[in-house]
Amino acid sequence: MKIIRKVSQMQKIALKYFQDGDEAGLVPTMGALHEGHVSLIDKSVRNDDITIVSIFVNPTQFGLNEDYLKYPRPFEKDVAICKKNHVDYIFAPSVNEMFPAAHKTFIEVKQMQDVLCGSFRKGHFRGVATVVAKLFNITFAERAYFGMKDFQQLKIIERMAKDLNFRTKIVPCPVVREKSGLALSSRNSYLSQKEKNDAVQISKILKEAKKNFSKNNVSAVLKDAIKKLNKISGSKIDYAEILDANTLSRADKASRNFIFAVAVWVGKTRLIDNVVL
Amino acid sequence: MKIIRKVSQMQKIALKYFQDGDEAGLVPTMGALHEGHVSLIDKSVRNDDITIVSIFVNPTQFGLNEDYLKYPRPFEKDVAICKKNHVDYIFAPSVNEMFPAAHKTFIEVKQMQDVLCGSFRKGHFRGVATVVAKLFNITFAERAYFGMKDFQQLKIIERMAKDLNFRTKIVPCPVVREKSGLALSSRNSYLSQKEKNDAVQISKILKEAKKNFSKNNVSAVLKDAIKKLNKISGSKIDYAEILDANTLSRADKASRNFIFAVAVWVGKTRLIDNVVL
Repeated sequence: MKIIRKVSQMQKIALKYFQDGDEAGLVPTMGALHEGHVSLIDKSVRNDDITIVSIFVNPTQFGLNEDYLKYPRPFEKDVAICKKNHVDYIFAPSVNEMFPAAHKTFIEVKQMQDVLCGSFRKGHFRGVATVVAKLFNITFAERAYFGMKDFQQLKIIERMAKDLNFRTKIVPCPVVREKSGLALSSRNSYLSQKEKNDAVQISKILKEAKKNFSKNNVSAVLKDAIKKLNKISGSKIDYAEILDANTLSRADKASRNFIFAVAVWVGKTRLIDNVVL
Repeated sequence: MKIIRKVSQMQKIALKYFQDGDEAGLVPTMGALHEGHVSLIDKSVRNDDITIVSIFVNPTQFGLNEDYLKYPRPFEKDVAICKKNHVDYIFAPSVNEMFPAAHKTFIEVKQMQDVLCGSFRKGHFRGVATVVAKLFNITFAERAYFGMKDFQQLKIIERMAKDLNFRTKIVPCPVVREKSGLALSSRNSYLSQKEKNDAVQISKILKEAKKNFSKNNVSAVLKDAIKKLNKISGSKIDYAEILDANTLSRADKASRNFIFAVAVWVGKTRLIDNVVL
């Protein structure tokens, strides 16, 4: 396994395997790897000739008052996890390497970027779409793996890749959960044991909503879930919405798939989770 | 020479020549080809194994009240010009092929997109950057050729390609002019003979400004040129500015290269021209 720090070096390697006919899989991460990431890595190792994990805490996707500085960066541990799971390359560039001072270009995915998390985290998905497009161009990936925990991110990246004619195929991967049901997230490390126990309720409420959901009782299911989410100790709901799973817009009669997505603060930690209905 | 209408077909061809190690040159155009375009084609034919001319009147780069509908589309004539000049592929997709209804993704190059033409044609460079990024992904071009007549476009594309780590190299090509000095443009076809004679003054005024320019007399040279531009019969100046040629921002002591760029209406036709000082 090799650790690559420079864009030019990664591109040179990528050009070589691409022209040799080897297919690369990209797992874009911000590090602090957990079993969710490992499930993406596993999928790539099975599908692709070469697996690249990018580790980059992307400043352009954090708001001014968000957790960019305190976001966990256990790099040595991440390296060990990648090595153990048969990753070929870790691409871990510096901020200056990815976003030098002269950088001026951003990618926006209209409408989809403004709902759910986008309405609370202005500019977040602009930063995500931009860095992912850069990673596609840097790695020539045949496939890129994204967890469904970040459902809105997944849908935005799918849209972006299609709209800009990237050849990289987007592979969605199921949410990985603790036995308790809590969705794995690098941000779970911010939770106290007490908060963690409280946070477990979120996935339980989503699971129950899924069980009770039908096309005809959207608002009743939603109302019930919001009531329960509000009862979680120390909780504050950013949003809880049932939307068309493809467009992330209001579900209507043409909708075939529905997503119930929530963002809930538990204490000082913002957690997101979702369930496809 | 082949004419390709479908993105998927162009990408399939591109993938093949790319993996065969052949280098492709892309000449992105809106058709209505003139000697300026031919100079780009010639350069690609000399440099590249394969030359692709894209012909696409891109609706996303036209404002609501602009000339999208009346923009000239002499397709058969363009095909003949390409054939004569040894083009390998014309890529001429439909609007729906490039921008289907579900399209939501746009690329913005901050600051640079807002000055000069950008301040008069809102969203113009967003449309340009987006379509060019798509063309890069569709053609896997090793090099792409842009005329310096559209100087701001050239600089924005250079910035975008660098910022998003496209491997495509941007090749700037000199302005091609009529003997009179008038910069070639597909929009010159809108001019009456009388207007064309008037428009010739623009390049003369720029040429004179270049002759008189020094770092210490920027405002005097500019003032004199504006006075003369205003004297052209039927003229209206959108802008006439001397800027740092690299950043398109206000020239300062760190500036090494200067660009004098103008947009001037002659009758109902908006003409742009520039000179590197």
